[in-house]
Amino acid sequence: MSAQHKIVTAALVIIGDEILSGRTQDKNTSYLATWLNEIGVELSEVRVVPDVEERIVAAVNALRRSFDYVFTTGGIGPTHDDITAESVARAFDVPLLVHRQAYSLLEQHYGAAEFTEARQRMARIPEGGMLIDNPVSIAPGFQMDNVFVMAGVPKIMQGMLEHLRDRIEGGDSVHTKTLTIFAPESRMAGGLADIEKAHEGLSIGSYPFFSASGGGARIVARSRDADVVSAAIEALKDFANDQDWQFEEVE
Amino acid sequence: MSAQHKIVTAALVIIGDEILSGRTQDKNTSYLATWLNEIGVELSEVRVVPDVEERIVAAVNALRRSFDYVFTTGGIGPTHDDITAESVARAFDVPLLVHRQAYSLLEQHYGAAEFTEARQRMARIPEGGMLIDNPVSIAPGFQMDNVFVMAGVPKIMQGMLEHLRDRIEGGDSVHTKTLTIFAPESRMAGGLADIEKAHEGLSIGSYPFFSASGGGARIVARSRDADVVSAAIEALKDFANDQDWQFEEVE
Repeated sequence: MSAQHKIVTAALVIIGDEILSGRTQDKNTSYLATWLNEIGVELSEVRVVPDVEERIVAAVNALRRSFDYVFTTGGIGPTHDDITAESVARAFDVPLLVHRQAYSLLEQHYGAAEFTEARQRMARIPEGGMLIDNPVSIAPGFQMDNVFVMAGVPKIMQGMLEHLRDRIEGGDSVHTKTLTIFAPESRMAGGLADIEKAHEGLSIGSYPFFSASGGGARIVARSRDADVVSAAIEALKDFANDQDWQFEEVE
Repeated sequence: MSAQHKIVTAALVIIGDEILSGRTQDKNTSYLATWLNEIGVELSEVRVVPDVEERIVAAVNALRRSFDYVFTTGGIGPTHDDITAESVARAFDVPLLVHRQAYSLLEQHYGAAEFTEARQRMARIPEGGMLIDNPVSIAPGFQMDNVFVMAGVPKIMQGMLEHLRDRIEGGDSVHTKTLTIFAPESRMAGGLADIEKAHEGLSIGSYPFFSASGGGARIVARSRDADVVSAAIEALKDFANDQDWQFEEVE
């Protein structure tokens, strides 16, 4: 990648025994990746860890030092297995305090009589944390430095993200275009490597698929320069034409 | 967990720009998690890393020292972006060599004339690696110590796993049962914590959902002791009945 491009990176920590047990399929990674890419941030690593404090602390601390932004999903509800807030407090070595604004938001939502001890847990935020609005179910997420702590329920996570746009400074977007070529991936390999080498700042990914009619591969051209991507797609088409392979541009 | 239970852990490294870009949704985690659980191995961490050698090396080396088994998916095809074999060789500090058996398997499959340089790449295995049979598309995976290197295409990964059963020594399975309770999670919190505390070796997870009719939470009881899980489900039903909440056992 050439020097004039600004590269901004992020990591995601998915906190959840339910993903690791296979019961639930994660849907937040692809949503967050797409959302970040649109604002010029590259999702560079994902870690799924169990609902265990030391594992959450280790992941958050490793990633917040290596990437520009870290997002976490899961574990901010009212039950005993929701331990993300205390874990993030420990990661930052600050106390976990009742946050006045979070407390009054929740109290207003539930009504004083129904604002039980369990619900009050959701008002505990690490000292210095800035709230993240939850338009779906009120209980807020929070931001500590470059770490954004969000809910795991996809609809809620997506709602929280909408409020974060202004807090994230993106870099140059990565442009991508995809061409499906209907030929064995192993016969394209040399040509793909040549095309990648011939275009500065281009990265080509090849993702094979198999079908009764023979399969092929989705060839993804990526670059921070949109012209490079367009040129690469033309080169890929010429390459496929030369070999008499069918191809199809993917929208 | 009580001392008489044997706990065996695993981690998964997903190698793939296509997951991190949001284009592709990972399907291997839930399949592997379920497969492992059936043989008494607990999936304890997942990391998604890009097609970058140093990142693959770092993840494999961190995880193979912390967990009993490590699985990797992706990056073992014939194209320039398939760099898992060289990365794992570097992680183990051994040379990457042409493996005779892999070479002849592939040569036989493609025919000598069609066994191109790109296809020959798939016969390179780190020194000391043991092949993993690929019943779908021939190109094998490989095992280095406690690390199992598999394809990323779900159908191929699943086929490879079938050949690994004998190479993995499981511990005690984790038993789980799920009860859906139709009430706000925050009103169940105290009861759930009490039930967890009352049963040794029990872990209760609570996964809320929201719907027009009010929602509720899936309550998952987990233990290495099947009797503890059954007792927990009975306690959960009593708890729901006491509160006049609807519930439903999940198969």
